[in-house]
Amino acid sequence: MSDLNALQSGLNYRFSDSALLRMALTHRSYGAENNERFEFLGDGLLNFVVADALFAAHPAAAEGMLSRLRARVVQKQTLAQQARRLRLGDYLFLGSGELKSGGQDRDSILADCLEAIIGAVYLDGGFAAGRHFVLEQFNDTLSKLSPDSLLKDPKSRLQEFLQKSANAPPQYRLVRTSGEPHQQHFVVQCVIDGTTSTFHGEGSSKRNAEQRAADAAYQHLTGDG
Amino acid sequence: MSDLNALQSGLNYRFSDSALLRMALTHRSYGAENNERFEFLGDGLLNFVVADALFAAHPAAAEGMLSRLRARVVQKQTLAQQARRLRLGDYLFLGSGELKSGGQDRDSILADCLEAIIGAVYLDGGFAAGRHFVLEQFNDTLSKLSPDSLLKDPKSRLQEFLQKSANAPPQYRLVRTSGEPHQQHFVVQCVIDGTTSTFHGEGSSKRNAEQRAADAAYQHLTGDG
Repeated sequence: MSDLNALQSGLNYRFSDSALLRMALTHRSYGAENNERFEFLGDGLLNFVVADALFAAHPAAAEGMLSRLRARVVQKQTLAQQARRLRLGDYLFLGSGELKSGGQDRDSILADCLEAIIGAVYLDGGFAAGRHFVLEQFNDTLSKLSPDSLLKDPKSRLQEFLQKSANAPPQYRLVRTSGEPHQQHFVVQCVIDGTTSTFHGEGSSKRNAEQRAADAAYQHLTGDG
Repeated sequence: MSDLNALQSGLNYRFSDSALLRMALTHRSYGAENNERFEFLGDGLLNFVVADALFAAHPAAAEGMLSRLRARVVQKQTLAQQARRLRLGDYLFLGSGELKSGGQDRDSILADCLEAIIGAVYLDGGFAAGRHFVLEQFNDTLSKLSPDSLLKDPKSRLQEFLQKSANAPPQYRLVRTSGEPHQQHFVVQCVIDGTTSTFHGEGSSKRNAEQRAADAAYQHLTGDG
């Protein structure tokens, strides 16, 4: 259990019942007893605590803005990033297939595991402990977020950023369309002069896919997110 | 303020700061100071408290089932129904346009107002008060919900129900399609022999729209929901 002790130091939370932490680290590929129920609970607590924190921090922000700010905190990429800081990948219980295919570094598995740990902290220590844990984990993210940072849609923001640095505007190319006519799925590529990286976005409309590709490009170029 | 006193009796919660309750009752059509931020907060608390209650009540239910059970509690129709029991429509502050068009009995306005009241109770009394309020408001709904009641999809459940009572199977008719090709919106009608009522469902695919129409028909026929 020295492993879990090290992890608990990193989490800055010591479990009364370490079986809860072990369960939170157990991916469904490992067995029927896994972290999916904890993830459900942790997701709910995370969403509420972040909502409450944003409500208090941004008294002038309208509901739509609060929703967008929250989405930024609870999105898979933010959770996975925090999970990597905590080195959760080193502690995961994964089935052999997932281990071989690199599941310990997959965004979705890491994000789900962090949500499950939030649920486990709540089960172990109650609401106050769960709330404190969430606020501590996302303190940096929350303090950097502001309505200003989100006021523009990703395509506008990217275009403005490129203009400022005297670059050509980004180009969007439709890479793939799939699905039935009434439920299509679009994959779009965002290409930027002077960078060899390309950025992809997916969505149920071409516009959504472009926005996501633009967001990916913006985050890459600015190191934001 | 006698009005708000009567309402608070119905809510079984007395506000220390009744301005919070007043704000929760104020629709955006009434003015810039309205209940939308409270609704954001209350929605988060409602989702978490219901998740927690379902997690505890159904220890064998998988995450997907818990999600579906929660959706049933927090859906607009359930919230609006509870808002009508509380007669929230009588207390709403609405702009004149909304008043004339019957906004005081609109599902979305009623549901949003109940969420705003949940947020207001939390702001007034803290987490324990908010949690207690949610559990009391949705006690009946929660106690009637079970994985069994949701195991089947709405179309299957309706068909089975009609078979048991020796009725012909339901028929689905596409009423309307709108939107651009990649983002269509479908309206479907479910017609059942022997009843003069018809039931509509809408969705981003024909199948979704049919499932919703079937669900509406099932709930009408069984008095469930």
